[in-house]
Amino acid sequence: MARQERAIRTRGVILEAAATVFDELGYEAATISEILKRAGVTKGAFYFHFPSKEDLAWGLLDQAVTTEGVRPQPIKLQEVVDTMLIMAHRLPREPVFSSALRLSVDRNSQRLFGTRWPDWISLLTSLLGEAKERGEIYPYLDETTTARLLLSAWTGVQIVSEGLPEEHDLSTEVSRMLQLMLPSIAVPTVLSQLEVFADRGARLLAAALPDTEADDTTVEKNAATTAG
Amino acid sequence: MARQERAIRTRGVILEAAATVFDELGYEAATISEILKRAGVTKGAFYFHFPSKEDLAWGLLDQAVTTEGVRPQPIKLQEVVDTMLIMAHRLPREPVFSSALRLSVDRNSQRLFGTRWPDWISLLTSLLGEAKERGEIYPYLDETTTARLLLSAWTGVQIVSEGLPEEHDLSTEVSRMLQLMLPSIAVPTVLSQLEVFADRGARLLAAALPDTEADDTTVEKNAATTAG
Repeated sequence: MARQERAIRTRGVILEAAATVFDELGYEAATISEILKRAGVTKGAFYFHFPSKEDLAWGLLDQAVTTEGVRPQPIKLQEVVDTMLIMAHRLPREPVFSSALRLSVDRNSQRLFGTRWPDWISLLTSLLGEAKERGEIYPYLDETTTARLLLSAWTGVQIVSEGLPEEHDLSTEVSRMLQLMLPSIAVPTVLSQLEVFADRGARLLAAALPDTEADDTTVEKNAATTAG
Repeated sequence: MARQERAIRTRGVILEAAATVFDELGYEAATISEILKRAGVTKGAFYFHFPSKEDLAWGLLDQAVTTEGVRPQPIKLQEVVDTMLIMAHRLPREPVFSSALRLSVDRNSQRLFGTRWPDWISLLTSLLGEAKERGEIYPYLDETTTARLLLSAWTGVQIVSEGLPEEHDLSTEVSRMLQLMLPSIAVPTVLSQLEVFADRGARLLAAALPDTEADDTTVEKNAATTAG
């Protein structure tokens, strides 16, 4: 493995460990030494990538906004749906995303790092703007407001689901939420063509896997599956 | 003031102080001595009502679920709307509610106290159940799921609004969210009769004021306004 690749890999391992510890203990209570232990890397490598706990939080938040797995679609609004369904699938499976949500929701870390919600809103706003130009959504809708409400609904689903005693599958919940909201957003001819199934996020991600910057294990596993 | 009234009043003053301190510092960082200072009551009175910091959190959470200000309506679904609009109006104005939301969202206090979301869900479920019996909402909707999604959207609006750099009026945001969701919930003849204006929460509360257990100052102010 080339030196640069190894550095990128080490950085990812550390972020993953930090995400897990932040998730379990919260940002305040998390310690560098615990993260270092989990990551299993040298102290030197650790501090080379992340000189402080703040840098770990920034690193996680920087990875929180992504459209990985979203493919160009004939209907632009489908890409909005896909972005939300993919994130609903990833959040409970990847500590990087759940810890970023926690950092955004916690008032103390909000003061330190802000949130990445403005980035999510501008990403969704730009997709909704294209959808509007194409006549896919009702012309009287403001795309920034609609983006903010979609993000709010998505975030609320995550947070309330986590706080309930019984389990709720996040993808199913987000799919249901979209089914309630989309009829007020999409014009009928577009609405009837949208795919909002709960498993769509998982399917899109699986299809995108060979192209993603997956870590070596995943790539190897994937190659093995293809070869076998 | 009778002894019992004074005790209820003191309890309210302490909870209000605790709510303000929890809101500012978070539950973990809040100290009894700071709350005691803000409440301006004697140590004896304080510990009589709330022997520990946990008791303060329980006390706040117990007040978090309320339909105060909601009046019986010819359309039952209007009461669901009214409950959500009234809470949207109260949350940014009454620390008791914002601190209860914070306690519910924070993972550490969630572990200690759970959330009151199940109570909100059962309250909304029962209203939606009545609405369904009357044919106000689409018969294929499950009222518990719909209640959970409405609560999630409401909660998401609060949390995302707080985490954005620009100000958003909560009542306006919740009104917009309801306008997006209700067409998928209410049958058309009911939908056209629902009132979802952003200022409805404030108006309902003002109308209910003389009947609420407002503190003395509010009652006096109110009496003065009526007299003058």
